[in-house]
Amino acid sequence: CSSITEQESSLDSVTYDRVCTQTLDALYDYIEELTENATDLAGSDVAYGDGVLTVNLGPANGIYVINRQTPNKQIWLSSPTSGPKRFDYVSGGTDAGEWIYKHSGESLHQLLQLELGKIFKGQSVDFLQLPHSHN
Amino acid sequence: CSSITEQESSLDSVTYDRVCTQTLDALYDYIEELTENATDLAGSDVAYGDGVLTVNLGPANGIYVINRQTPNKQIWLSSPTSGPKRFDYVSGGTDAGEWIYKHSGESLHQLLQLELGKIFKGQSVDFLQLPHSHN
Repeated sequence: CSSITEQESSLDSVTYDRVCTQTLDALYDYIEELTENATDLAGSDVAYGDGVLTVNLGPANGIYVINRQTPNKQIWLSSPTSGPKRFDYVSGGTDAGEWIYKHSGESLHQLLQLELGKIFKGQSVDFLQLPHSHN
Repeated sequence: CSSITEQESSLDSVTYDRVCTQTLDALYDYIEELTENATDLAGSDVAYGDGVLTVNLGPANGIYVINRQTPNKQIWLSSPTSGPKRFDYVSGGTDAGEWIYKHSGESLHQLLQLELGKIFKGQSVDFLQLPHSHN
């Protein structure tokens, strides 16, 4: 755990801004594509602006919110299924890195794969092909 | 606590939709007004759509997200200062009611009064005049 803390604290603001924007941009594009192809999700809507990605999957499924939190250099997620979590960027030192929930070691993209994989079950879902989804 | 659970479970979907919309609409108008009058909050922005109210108070203060969560009949809040909380609507039986965080008894509007009162410290802030801010 100490090595994670060390890596995290060394994340500079410029790198945070870049990887955070790349992460949210890619998630927006991908989730919007999944939602457009989902014919059975009435009332769904995906919106992205000002660092906040909102994924409304209709009244039965609820709303996911994924947002940057610049003061903490984190990405925060709110899931209607599993609740809220905060993710820190952990990089192996190369350009690769991922957003990790430190209490469990789970990554943001693993969580989305698990939960949205069930909701978009008619489609082939692979969040781990997106930028910053794994080390 | 049992009486809160009873009241909460008796909230029907139509009432939830109405009070939730009234609450978020009023919060959006009020926070937008506060933000417009705040001359010292560079990069701030307030957005509202599809049940999600996003209050970006700039890179130093972070982002508040307040959103409806229809499957739970709750309002969820994510605060850069105090983290995430889920609020249930508790009504005294009349038309009055408020959104309560059950673990502490704190209301949504009390929390916003406390935290945003500090950020908009140059202005007279009163969240407890808004709809559904107290019983």
